[in-house]
Parts: sequence; structure tokens; C-alpha cells
Amino acid sequence: METRRVQETTAALVVIGDEILSGAVADANIPWLAAQLRQIGVRLRRVLVVADVVGEIGEAVGDVAGRHTYVFTSGGVGPTHDDVTMAGVAAGLGRRMARHQEFEALIRAAFGEKTNEHLLAMADLPEGARLEFAPGDPFPTVAVANLFVLPGVPQYFRSRFNVIRGLLHGTPLASRRVYTTKEEPAIAGLLADAEDLRAGVRIGSYPVYDRASDYRVMITVESLDPADADAVRDHLVQHLGPEAVARVG
Amino acid sequence: METRRVQETTAALVVIGDEILSGAVADANIPWLAAQLRQIGVRLRRVLVVADVVGEIGEAVGDVAGRHTYVFTSGGVGPTHDDVTMAGVAAGLGRRMARHQEFEALIRAAFGEKTNEHLLAMADLPEGARLEFAPGDPFPTVAVANLFVLPGVPQYFRSRFNVIRGLLHGTPLASRRVYTTKEEPAIAGLLADAEDLRAGVRIGSYPVYDRASDYRVMITVESLDPADADAVRDHLVQHLGPEAVARVG
Repeated sequence: METRRVQETTAALVVIGDEILSGAVADANIPWLAAQLRQIGVRLRRVLVVADVVGEIGEAVGDVAGRHTYVFTSGGVGPTHDDVTMAGVAAGLGRRMARHQEFEALIRAAFGEKTNEHLLAMADLPEGARLEFAPGDPFPTVAVANLFVLPGVPQYFRSRFNVIRGLLHGTPLASRRVYTTKEEPAIAGLLADAEDLRAGVRIGSYPVYDRASDYRVMITVESLDPADADAVRDHLVQHLGPEAVARVG
Repeated sequence: METRRVQETTAALVVIGDEILSGAVADANIPWLAAQLRQIGVRLRRVLVVADVVGEIGEAVGDVAGRHTYVFTSGGVGPTHDDVTMAGVAAGLGRRMARHQEFEALIRAAFGEKTNEHLLAMADLPEGARLEFAPGDPFPTVAVANLFVLPGVPQYFRSRFNVIRGLLHGTPLASRRVYTTKEEPAIAGLLADAEDLRAGVRIGSYPVYDRASDYRVMITVESLDPADADAVRDHLVQHLGPEAVARVG
């Protein structure tokens, strides 16, 4: 098997989420982030949902930081005692926490005489943290090394991600789809063989259970090389037989 | 600080999910499982979403299996080449794969002459796997040690979980809620102090951003000891002041 010619750009997401783990809130950030990253050629490769506990956040961050091009965290960035994401990130990256002077000034300017020690604690960031600003936005997005700290509330998760989107650089993946009327058991051998045709091609198989659908299985073909993706898709169509292909994409 | 008197019962979920990581499908199993587990006193403590790759599944399973009372996996249990959950579970638990005779007989009975090697491969299970049956269900749910293998499609995830629900034993958690009209910055100190009142009490703080809401922050108080949960809730209500409490639960 030949080696892959291009290195894939990957990302991990660490969700700091007691509210997700308790079932109180259903995550809405994972599919959104995955789709956004795909558009710029970054593959979301792992998600961890951990409790709002410094040690657990640190372990998760430490586990993924060195293995992925980018790491995102969501949640746990407010002023209360359970907002421990920054301390967890610092632990995970092996950095100390330090009061960030520029961030402190922003907090004082925004809250005026309402400023208190809990609000100022939001300016305690991992050493070396960078502040990324968007025009007109009073507060920055915090980045540390290859890690970006995002809020958990979907509305703010999205607006903050949009602030740092321009900093990300990916390797776009070519994606092809074949919708077949055959059932999975009948095509399992074909898919296994087809994946070995070209190195670095990934084939996914997604059966549908809705009998009203015009196909039984959606087959996805992905590769960093568009020619490889085309070749494997064409191979699938040929071996399924045109009568068993509802459509291609 | 006194030590906690009762050991918490915890669980982890490993989602085998290229379709989640690609953004093609939004997870619906995490909140459902979390809520079900809560009802029987099991706390979902960690979720990992990994790619459909044996090594990554194995690493995730190995990481959580020894640390939680129960582990659940979802997805990757069909007959195609990308259904590698069983091999990943075996790797994670340090077990060999072996053809399970009883499962093989079930497959042959269900598929008859359509039986092929890809279908039979579904009977290759980690050594020591147990089959859990529900009345009228042609196929069992597979369990290995403290780990339960569930399908990814929500409809089947739920029906399979219901098969093994009776096997799970938890330690119910008392949960109280206080809905306050105060903002997070104003109550951060109170919450931090209140959590230290009784050992083993966890306080969560969930701001709402909908201005039409009759409260600004939902405070959750959880403890294995109902008396502790009550005491901390009452402390919060007293110190917030009745005029700042929209309601309690």
C-alpha cells in the first residue's frame, strides 16, 4: 500500500459540559463545528465531553493537544465557580495561570463599578494566551498555542468561531456519494475491496431505515485526492450495476 | 472536609461515529442516555466520539473501562467493513476476538440462504461476550464485562438499552433547583461558598439569555444525600433573598 501523499489536517473538540452529561441540554455545537471545519478542509477527528472539573478537562486537553492540528473547547468560561475551563486548559498544556493585563482592562471597562473579583478571575488565563478580536466585539476569543476557547451557548459558540475562522488552514477533502438500492449485507464485500483500491480513500456506509426512501444505503467516498475519490466512486457504480444506483453525488 | 459517604455510580459512553464527526448526523443518544441513567442513579461522566477505526475505539474503551461502573458504546455494529466496534472493544479490554457459536446460529436462522461471510462476521465477538435477550427480539444485545454494545441509530439504541436497563444498579442523586432573577456575576461568590457547605454537594450555574424568561440563572444542587441537597438549597434561597428567587424545584 502506498503512503498517503498529503497530511490530513485534523481537529478535536473538548466539550466542558455538566449540562450535556446530565441530559439537561442537547449538544448543538458538534455538527455545526464539524460542518464548518469540513468547509475549510479540517477533519474533526475526536470529541470528548467532560465534567466541569479542572483535572478532567486537563486530562482531555493534554490527550488531544499534541495529536491534532487544532483543538477547540466549548463551555465553562463564565464568572462562576464551575467555570474552570481556563484552569483545565492550563493544566492540560502544562502552563501556569496568570492574570492577563489587557483582558483585565477590558473587564474593568465593560463592567465599571460592578467589577468584582469573580469577574476579574475571567482574566486569569494560561500563560502565553492570545486575544483574538473581531471588529465591534468588546470581548476577545482566547487562544493558547493551537487551542481555541469557545463558549458553550451555541449562539456565542458560532459567533466566536467566526472570529477565529480566518486563522485556520486545512487540506480540503474530496467527497463523493453513491446512493444504492441494495442492502448492506449484499454490498459489504464490494465496499471492503473498493476501499483498498486507492490508498487514503475512506468509504462510509450509511443505511436508511425509512422504507419510503428511494435508496437503502448511502455510500460515501472521501479522499484528499479528487482523482482517487472519482475512481473509487466509478468503481462502485460499475460493480453495483446502474440499476442498483439511485443516484450519485 | 469530610469524605463522601456513598460511592457514586458512573458511566461513560463511547460513540463510534464517523457520521457524527463529519457533521452528517447530529447525536440524539447522549441526552437520552444521560436522562435514562439519571433515573436509575447512574451519572454519565464522560463521552468520547471517535472515528470508525479499531485503534481509536480500543484506546477510548481502554481509557474508560476501568474508571466507570458501566461503559456503553453506540454505533458500528453492522455487517460492513466500517463496522469495527467489536474489534475495538476487544482491543480496549485486552481480549481476543472469537466466533460466538450461539450468535452465529442466530444469524444463520435469520438470514437463511442469504447468509454470507460478512453477516457471519457479526458473530465475531470479544471473548467472554454475553448475549442479553428481550422477549420476542430475534437478536441479542452484546455485553462484555461492564460494557454494553448498542447500535447508533437512535430508535435501536433506545430499544436495545431498554433490554439491558434491568441489569444496571445505581445510587440515586438528590437534585434541587433554584431559579434566580440575579445575574451570574452577582451570585458567583455565594455559589462558591455554598458548594463548600456540605461535602459531596455539586452546584451548577446555568444562565439564560432569553430576556422573556422570568429568571436569569438556574442553579442546580446535587448530592447523594437528600438532606445535604435540601440544606444547600435553603441556604441559597435565604442568601439570595426571597425577592430574587423566581421559584425553587
